[in-house]
Amino acid sequence: MNIYEYPSRGQYKALLARPTLSFAEIEMRVRPIIDEVAQKGDEALRKFALDFDNILLNDFKVTDAELRDAENQISVELKNAIDQAYENISVFHKAQQVEEAQVETMPGVFCWRKSVGIQKVGIYIPGGSAPLFSTVLMLAIPAQIAGCQQIVLCSPSNHPAIYYAAQKCGITEAYRIGGAQAVAAMAVGTETVPAVYKIFGPGNQYVTAAKQIVSQMGVAIDMPAGPSEVAVLADHRANAAFIASDLLSQAEHGADSQVLLVGTDKDIILKTIEEVKLQLAFLPRKELAAKALENSKAILVKDLDEATYLLNEYAAEHLILSIENPEEVAANIVNAGSIFLGDYTPESCGDYASGTNHTLPTNGYARAYSGVSLDSFVKKITYQKISKAGLEKLGPIVEIMAEAEQLDAHKNAVTIRLKNIKDQA
Amino acid sequence: MNIYEYPSRGQYKALLARPTLSFAEIEMRVRPIIDEVAQKGDEALRKFALDFDNILLNDFKVTDAELRDAENQISVELKNAIDQAYENISVFHKAQQVEEAQVETMPGVFCWRKSVGIQKVGIYIPGGSAPLFSTVLMLAIPAQIAGCQQIVLCSPSNHPAIYYAAQKCGITEAYRIGGAQAVAAMAVGTETVPAVYKIFGPGNQYVTAAKQIVSQMGVAIDMPAGPSEVAVLADHRANAAFIASDLLSQAEHGADSQVLLVGTDKDIILKTIEEVKLQLAFLPRKELAAKALENSKAILVKDLDEATYLLNEYAAEHLILSIENPEEVAANIVNAGSIFLGDYTPESCGDYASGTNHTLPTNGYARAYSGVSLDSFVKKITYQKISKAGLEKLGPIVEIMAEAEQLDAHKNAVTIRLKNIKDQA
Repeated sequence: MNIYEYPSRGQYKALLARPTLSFAEIEMRVRPIIDEVAQKGDEALRKFALDFDNILLNDFKVTDAELRDAENQISVELKNAIDQAYENISVFHKAQQVEEAQVETMPGVFCWRKSVGIQKVGIYIPGGSAPLFSTVLMLAIPAQIAGCQQIVLCSPSNHPAIYYAAQKCGITEAYRIGGAQAVAAMAVGTETVPAVYKIFGPGNQYVTAAKQIVSQMGVAIDMPAGPSEVAVLADHRANAAFIASDLLSQAEHGADSQVLLVGTDKDIILKTIEEVKLQLAFLPRKELAAKALENSKAILVKDLDEATYLLNEYAAEHLILSIENPEEVAANIVNAGSIFLGDYTPESCGDYASGTNHTLPTNGYARAYSGVSLDSFVKKITYQKISKAGLEKLGPIVEIMAEAEQLDAHKNAVTIRLKNIKDQA
Repeated sequence: MNIYEYPSRGQYKALLARPTLSFAEIEMRVRPIIDEVAQKGDEALRKFALDFDNILLNDFKVTDAELRDAENQISVELKNAIDQAYENISVFHKAQQVEEAQVETMPGVFCWRKSVGIQKVGIYIPGGSAPLFSTVLMLAIPAQIAGCQQIVLCSPSNHPAIYYAAQKCGITEAYRIGGAQAVAAMAVGTETVPAVYKIFGPGNQYVTAAKQIVSQMGVAIDMPAGPSEVAVLADHRANAAFIASDLLSQAEHGADSQVLLVGTDKDIILKTIEEVKLQLAFLPRKELAAKALENSKAILVKDLDEATYLLNEYAAEHLILSIENPEEVAANIVNAGSIFLGDYTPESCGDYASGTNHTLPTNGYARAYSGVSLDSFVKKITYQKISKAGLEKLGPIVEIMAEAEQLDAHKNAVTIRLKNIKDQA
């Protein structure tokens, strides 16, 4: 980690800059994949599975038996842990259901909104060594609560923990396909894979590029993606070992992980860097983590106000406040994905089981984007109903405004009705 | 209008297809504009204003005096109409503020969310003959309620109704620039125009392409855009003159407007088509509207259930239910932007002043997207705080899950804290 002592505000922009993400080149390779899936359907999926992953795809729809039997193929303790995480995530996301009241904006003018689950959603879960069953929970639980009718899972992994989570969350169908072609399949539909209206989930740069491309084709996506990141704010009394473990949690995700330590006490920063070295030695993923740490920064600032300013400039995906009164700083943070308050709230609790969602805006997107929540799986339709008396009040206002915008047919839609009401009287 | 009688469900897809939107060619022309604004700032804005619009841009920041004096340059009746629309839109959007309770997902594990206004937002309002001051209201009112700190307006129009609406809605600064270069300026910032985090507003295909491009550069946008559209559902007792006026309200927006009439009674469909012809003759924009109507469709279906199925397939931006019991059908519509119930609720009321927002998902996006609302101007940050007792309950669950995902540092962030708690005891 590189230490920066009391940088000026003018230096923050350069100091906090993330690596530039360019998908231009990858997009050029992914676009033909999407086109081919659109044209040839399952045949293209089989071809790409063979070409890219050396897999002979026959039936790639996961059977009901596979989903059902998954429960018996994981340990009881993992099953129980998933069950408890399911409970906590459900409780937190159910609390996001709100019924909005009908509003009578003027006498006789009634307006309201209703949340309606997106009918068809797709969830992508990458393969690789570690099966990300936690992401199945994070995406399928809110989909289930939202009342999405069709929840489709695509994953190259057939790990039973993924299937156990899938069946628990009401996933209606699962397909053993991966990569950009899986995203394409959910976007355009094939003989086997249904087309969905919104696609969620993490993935490598090909998956990310595929999501970006299909989002320009009319399919919604959860949010733009970038490397995962954490910022930790530590004061003089923070526990260096705790902080080091949090920085390493982020670093182990990959060499491109963004790790930022902001401190008001030089001593704690130095101790934390020592602790990072100690703990790193014991990690199986130490090489990846070490790489991420090479580019990471520790910034010493003069006080918590300055730290708040800096952290709002950075807009971290995860922000851990290892300080004495975390609520005070949290109240002034306006740009962050998820905030962890106090010494005993490690990010990994939010990643797995506290109840909050772990799909969060990276790359500074927290300035404008929220993390995934129940909101991500619903549309809010607006409604209005106007009584004759209401139109008599509201109509003349609309007539004046429509005329001023030179939209005469808009005006006429009111005039013709007002005349009808008058004729009836 | 072309009439289709009792088409089969297999024909719906083709029947309801929208024109394919391709921005590829326009994007190629817009990308260099964005690049040049990013590199040369104000100088580029001046150059493009001269090249594209033959305008010599000197100071293009609208002065406080211009904003303040606008009130005296519009008629009292227009001022009063805008004031009432402001009231109604404010009431409806304020009702969208919700305070979510803190949730204790497990004993000692506290999770919550807070809505925070996006600090910097930009609103684009196109020029042209008709000044779209209503769109200023629709975008700036929720921005104001959300507590956005900087609300930037860019418009080539200097119509006083736009400036009156702007000052009323707390717009902090306005710039007299338009086109793709205005979007670029708000995305990247220039010496004069501040960079914002999210850009809203309608525009021609260059503006739309610019929004699409900057959305890939990390700036959020309100939603992808397509031509405006209405679907009207009419039963045997519907008023043909009312429906015709609604279809024409949509058609007058432009030649590419999408107009769809769905009816359960052939007689009403025929009468409506006659009424459209009658009313069209009196419209100043009759040529535009006539063009839109050439491509429009009237579909006769056997009953309201079939109509509901068809309308859910179509996912209209605006859906008018001119039927006897509109609530019954509305309850079964899952895909629509905004729904207008009954004979005396013309779309134009929602376009201007009933209180609902008029920025809505077109082009079938209503399947996955909501219209603009207060939600569009906030991020929801998640928070969590875990007590020592809470971590003792939650921690072991996280340890098991992190281990199963082979993320050892994630596990260790819990283990190290649990050990610390034990050591203290």
